[in-house]
Amino acid sequence: MSVTTAAGFLASGVTAGLKPSGRPDLALVVNTGPDQVAAAVFTTNRVKAAPVLWSQQAVADGRLHAVVLNSGGANACTGPDGFADAHRTAEHVAAELGRRDGVEVGAGDVAVCSTGLIGVRLPMDLLTAGVTAAAGALAEDGGAVAAGAIMTTDTVAKTAGYADEGWSVGGMAKGAGMLAPGLATMLVVITTDAVIDAEAAGEHLRRACSTSFERVDSDGCMSTNDTVVLMSSGASGVRPAPHDFQAALSETCQDLAMQLLRDAEGSSHDIAIEVQHAASEADALEVARAVARSNLFKCAIFGGDPNWGRVLAAIGTTGADFEPDRIDVAFNGVELCRDGSIGDDRSLVDLSGRDVRVTINLRNGRGAATIWTNDLTYDYVKENAEYST
Amino acid sequence: MSVTTAAGFLASGVTAGLKPSGRPDLALVVNTGPDQVAAAVFTTNRVKAAPVLWSQQAVADGRLHAVVLNSGGANACTGPDGFADAHRTAEHVAAELGRRDGVEVGAGDVAVCSTGLIGVRLPMDLLTAGVTAAAGALAEDGGAVAAGAIMTTDTVAKTAGYADEGWSVGGMAKGAGMLAPGLATMLVVITTDAVIDAEAAGEHLRRACSTSFERVDSDGCMSTNDTVVLMSSGASGVRPAPHDFQAALSETCQDLAMQLLRDAEGSSHDIAIEVQHAASEADALEVARAVARSNLFKCAIFGGDPNWGRVLAAIGTTGADFEPDRIDVAFNGVELCRDGSIGDDRSLVDLSGRDVRVTINLRNGRGAATIWTNDLTYDYVKENAEYST
Repeated sequence: MSVTTAAGFLASGVTAGLKPSGRPDLALVVNTGPDQVAAAVFTTNRVKAAPVLWSQQAVADGRLHAVVLNSGGANACTGPDGFADAHRTAEHVAAELGRRDGVEVGAGDVAVCSTGLIGVRLPMDLLTAGVTAAAGALAEDGGAVAAGAIMTTDTVAKTAGYADEGWSVGGMAKGAGMLAPGLATMLVVITTDAVIDAEAAGEHLRRACSTSFERVDSDGCMSTNDTVVLMSSGASGVRPAPHDFQAALSETCQDLAMQLLRDAEGSSHDIAIEVQHAASEADALEVARAVARSNLFKCAIFGGDPNWGRVLAAIGTTGADFEPDRIDVAFNGVELCRDGSIGDDRSLVDLSGRDVRVTINLRNGRGAATIWTNDLTYDYVKENAEYST
Repeated sequence: MSVTTAAGFLASGVTAGLKPSGRPDLALVVNTGPDQVAAAVFTTNRVKAAPVLWSQQAVADGRLHAVVLNSGGANACTGPDGFADAHRTAEHVAAELGRRDGVEVGAGDVAVCSTGLIGVRLPMDLLTAGVTAAAGALAEDGGAVAAGAIMTTDTVAKTAGYADEGWSVGGMAKGAGMLAPGLATMLVVITTDAVIDAEAAGEHLRRACSTSFERVDSDGCMSTNDTVVLMSSGASGVRPAPHDFQAALSETCQDLAMQLLRDAEGSSHDIAIEVQHAASEADALEVARAVARSNLFKCAIFGGDPNWGRVLAAIGTTGADFEPDRIDVAFNGVELCRDGSIGDDRSLVDLSGRDVRVTINLRNGRGAATIWTNDLTYDYVKENAEYST
């Protein structure tokens, strides 16, 4: 499954030469219709990269013809010149697609996504030549190549999809989690041949993101470039029931989000922080996120230490509604903390596997939420100390 | 200078055997009067250790006779039994001091501070025997020994003080920063022989903490046990002008806070995040703290990389009032980011020294604040992955 699983899409990936490594660094995904419906979700960081500012405008009318994605440079904090570069990239894509298909394509129907070092201008000569090459390489089975071309520190290409009777959803992703990516920006492109209107597409996408990418918090840092784009070609001619489409989209997003988590830079554990019986879902999320962002907790997991005291210390920094002496905490099912105090023996917990589940029961209501995070390791420090982003 | 620099104080430090290392682990500081004025500031963590809950009650009347401090166990998340242990410790101190001096001492005039592993009961037999030994070892020059006995992962004992004509302030500390300590709890005891009333002592202490310990944010984690106690014996007979006393107290706190920063677990850089021209001091603090808590930024400093893009990405996550294209950022005086975009060349910045100053100019008002933090290093991960707290 990939972005070309859905009918009506072409994709390609090429080496434009933006990355010193010489690996593929530019991908193009084109919607050949008949519909060109689109929606997108962007970083909530107030320092937004030029391609985010550009793409917000491009998708505002609910329509996109193509998305171009580059690694090797984030084009963030590059001022008006950087915005002009993003604009020029979209224009070049539009011109190439127009020439290729003999149709009029507007730059305003081309979204641009970039990832890499902040505060450096893109080499526009290389980029535009790469766009020309990518347009020439577009293929109905180009999804896997495109997914490979958006990798930065990713160790594997990430694709997912969902096929129903007569219609399908496909997707690709790079980077870590949406609201709190690791080293690099998260970029996601999702395609579908289902028939759907733009407003519904936006609602479905926001809902799918809110319980997938937005619940992955690998290292608490939020990128300037995070983008999730959904495009619909309507090529299947099938208009699925809203519930069915939501399920397919949410499943695809969740699949990609878990792939991002498992490939987070330098991590050795995937940790689910599950909060139960909070006064509200918002409280549950606040508590889960506070634990997910505790460096002390994350180091302990790396060290194989089921340190429930650090979980309670993190919970105590929140404004959530709870009583300290009614909190229960379990590590992989072993209830180490009961009534906010000493529970079962910590030697009963086995943290040798990659998956860790920390369950926090606030015994205070019906709110629940899970945040996925990673441990804090030597390799995390190494990658982020030695790599300039 | 130490807690016994001020007249009217005795102190001691002994090995009670609470720590497997066999190092000193119990300290006692006694105010012999004539006044026994006291004030304290405690962690704002809502999960408070038993000794914090006990000491909050003890100091509520503005009066303390003594403070007992132990390492080797935090007595946090230990339920009603843990609170009873803190109470019993205070009672034992009161009994020993009463016997020693032939006076009546109430347990309610003894503050208790503990640091170490959360979620483990203290070995009360060892602790009470240690208290007896500490009471027997009290000395007019015991300040340095006491400062050594409260060390946990500290590599040096931390003392400070201030002497004016006829009156003085002395202090000792262990751990990292108040609102966001590193591995271990921050415990601070400050003594003075100046004449001061309890209400004023509390106001002076809160003001001194707010610009010292509360502005050190080594790793974003807040302990369940942080405590700062101020005791005044009035033994000098001098009542300094409020402004003079505030200056002496603030200077002592600032000195101790910087010692804590320099000794933070595993750190290789001390980083001042200085925010200028914010719309308010609260905005400046929010921005400085967001940068201080960015793991990506902290790894970059460890790697000697003046990564201003990560500074802007962190600023963008705040709710502070700013325009992204009016932000200037300098590393050690080199303005790498101007108008939110590319400034001077990053090769001009030298990060080889221990001290790093990041200056963020929001060009938006008169608010200013500085937060001190550390870099994120292999050794930070090592200490916190291998050491159970």
